[in-house]
Amino acid sequence: MIRGNDPILLTPGPLTTSLETKQAMLRDWGSWDASFNAITASICKDLVGVVNAAATHVCVPLQGSGTFAVEAALANLVPRDGKVLVPQNGAYCQRILKILKYLGRAHAAIDLAEDAQATPAMIEEAFARDPAITHVAQVHCETSTGILNPLPEIAAACARHGKGLIVDAMSSFGAIEIDASRYPIDAIVAASGKCIEGAPGMGFVIARQALLEKSQGNSHSLAMDLHDQWTYMQKTTQWRFTPPTHVVAAFRAALDQFKAEGGTAARGARYRKNSETLIESMTALGFRSFLPRAIQAPIIVTFHAPGDANYSFKAFYEKVRARGYILYPGKLTQVETFRVGCIGAIDANEMRNVASAVAETLKDMGIKQVAPARTPALA
Amino acid sequence: MIRGNDPILLTPGPLTTSLETKQAMLRDWGSWDASFNAITASICKDLVGVVNAAATHVCVPLQGSGTFAVEAALANLVPRDGKVLVPQNGAYCQRILKILKYLGRAHAAIDLAEDAQATPAMIEEAFARDPAITHVAQVHCETSTGILNPLPEIAAACARHGKGLIVDAMSSFGAIEIDASRYPIDAIVAASGKCIEGAPGMGFVIARQALLEKSQGNSHSLAMDLHDQWTYMQKTTQWRFTPPTHVVAAFRAALDQFKAEGGTAARGARYRKNSETLIESMTALGFRSFLPRAIQAPIIVTFHAPGDANYSFKAFYEKVRARGYILYPGKLTQVETFRVGCIGAIDANEMRNVASAVAETLKDMGIKQVAPARTPALA
Repeated sequence: MIRGNDPILLTPGPLTTSLETKQAMLRDWGSWDASFNAITASICKDLVGVVNAAATHVCVPLQGSGTFAVEAALANLVPRDGKVLVPQNGAYCQRILKILKYLGRAHAAIDLAEDAQATPAMIEEAFARDPAITHVAQVHCETSTGILNPLPEIAAACARHGKGLIVDAMSSFGAIEIDASRYPIDAIVAASGKCIEGAPGMGFVIARQALLEKSQGNSHSLAMDLHDQWTYMQKTTQWRFTPPTHVVAAFRAALDQFKAEGGTAARGARYRKNSETLIESMTALGFRSFLPRAIQAPIIVTFHAPGDANYSFKAFYEKVRARGYILYPGKLTQVETFRVGCIGAIDANEMRNVASAVAETLKDMGIKQVAPARTPALA
Repeated sequence: MIRGNDPILLTPGPLTTSLETKQAMLRDWGSWDASFNAITASICKDLVGVVNAAATHVCVPLQGSGTFAVEAALANLVPRDGKVLVPQNGAYCQRILKILKYLGRAHAAIDLAEDAQATPAMIEEAFARDPAITHVAQVHCETSTGILNPLPEIAAACARHGKGLIVDAMSSFGAIEIDASRYPIDAIVAASGKCIEGAPGMGFVIARQALLEKSQGNSHSLAMDLHDQWTYMQKTTQWRFTPPTHVVAAFRAALDQFKAEGGTAARGARYRKNSETLIESMTALGFRSFLPRAIQAPIIVTFHAPGDANYSFKAFYEKVRARGYILYPGKLTQVETFRVGCIGAIDANEMRNVASAVAETLKDMGIKQVAPARTPALA
């Protein structure tokens, strides 16, 4: 794949982007100029199309990281007297709970183990126990482990009970199918620097228009007021406040490449091949992945750290990095792990190559026991 | 000056950046990687140095546009029971008032004409009238007209009365001297895509450390919680949430060029030469600038629209754009104006060139009366 001479990022955003995407940043754009505003409009149109929501939803872009957009979606689309249920199996679910505390929105969690999927049954039980619940906030793919939660089934459960659904699709959007025309979703949130393979710097909320229209006054913040951003953009074609123009231009280039590749199906297939190649190659070295294959999303893979006394993540990271690959630390509290991202402008060759780099590193560090020291508590 | 083949942006951010700055975006950075975090740390150190505040202040970068950072500064550094005085002479002052409404912070405005500077005397009168005031939020250079407010004198007045001072230095930082060691300022807010000449996408707050330390719990928002961002960064060297890595790398390159040019003094001198050349050249064509020279900052110049019936901003804009220059619309409600920015990787030649492009455009549009139609109400 085309890219510069950088170390390859095997991290779940920022990720390795194509040279073409980066080159789109070699131009300055006036944020008032029609040519730039046409880019914004075309991006919004395409993003709504990715989740098959053109008939019902609009896209509101927002400056900042993905978390900014998640906060904005919750603040704008959950009324101030709403109550949000969060099926919680990782760090990004916990972040949603933290945001809800800041917003002063009532909330309840279903606390799950980090290797347990959320299920429609447990969500329906929660509805029965607590009729005050008005919304579910669901992380689609939990990047802290790589677990996939069953979105279509959860959406159907929410619909049966008349509950709203806000989906943090940060690391699934564009790689795992989401079809808002087949099951109702109030809002889908993602960001530029994830599976569409743009540069980080903007998020977006694909919101049901009918809900967005009546959300005026919900937002706690001017900067994160999606209703205000959307109405201003409708009126003027411009962002309310200075957009990250270079990032927006790069995102346009990234979307063009996404479409040329064949959209979500093709991108998802490439990532699946990446993740399968990675797991195979690492398993051959003696590593054990944290999640069972059935609930493993093709986005990022968590591996147990080697049980060898010679292992330390810092040294391992540095030595693999020196061989051209940037890994990601684990984010679990109970077991020592590291993560390898499968997304970005990379293919299965990179997965084989990183496994080779890991093999050399193991040798270099004198690591003999690659399997975890003890039967891991959660696996 | 070095740049690509783009139209020149004579807009006050985004602005024309150097090719060197843009080329810094041709690399992907891991946001967890030490090499990237060293860039963030070096940027923060340099920014504190620009306003001579290393002994007392720290820099907290924030994803998003400058307005996000202004909102974050107000939310974090004004306690929930504080009251903010806003000397109001333009759109960015009005935006601060809007933010304070969202935040539920008590506030009062001194409403001024758009061509009238804020003065220490009127601020001290407001303190005498309303002892509940705890802070002043002062826009340094009001980009909506280009007016410069007398910051050192206002800071001294705040200090005499023991009031806090938060400065929106969005379009002055790095071009007009601010010296936090000579007059007390609680926070100075600016952004990457302004006079340091980076790409837009991040803001920053240079906050008095003693105040930031006791600001925990003030923020209405997780994403905009500066205390949380700062303490996390102190502990880990990383941003809490995905940073706009390419924008950060470009900002580092821009800061290097800023230092090489000679810092605020040299950059301010270049911009002053730009603005003087512009005003001279446009005056020679018959245009009248909106502000008296004495209160005109060298950042952006507001001109009265020609009084000729053949003039329309849209056509004028398009025709000047076709000649390679992107102008900025006026932002005044009572008189028709347009604006020309003097900042970015441009020099006095561009100012002469845009005046030539304007002269050709006037001819092209059949505009004979270049002066405004009537004695402008506010001038």
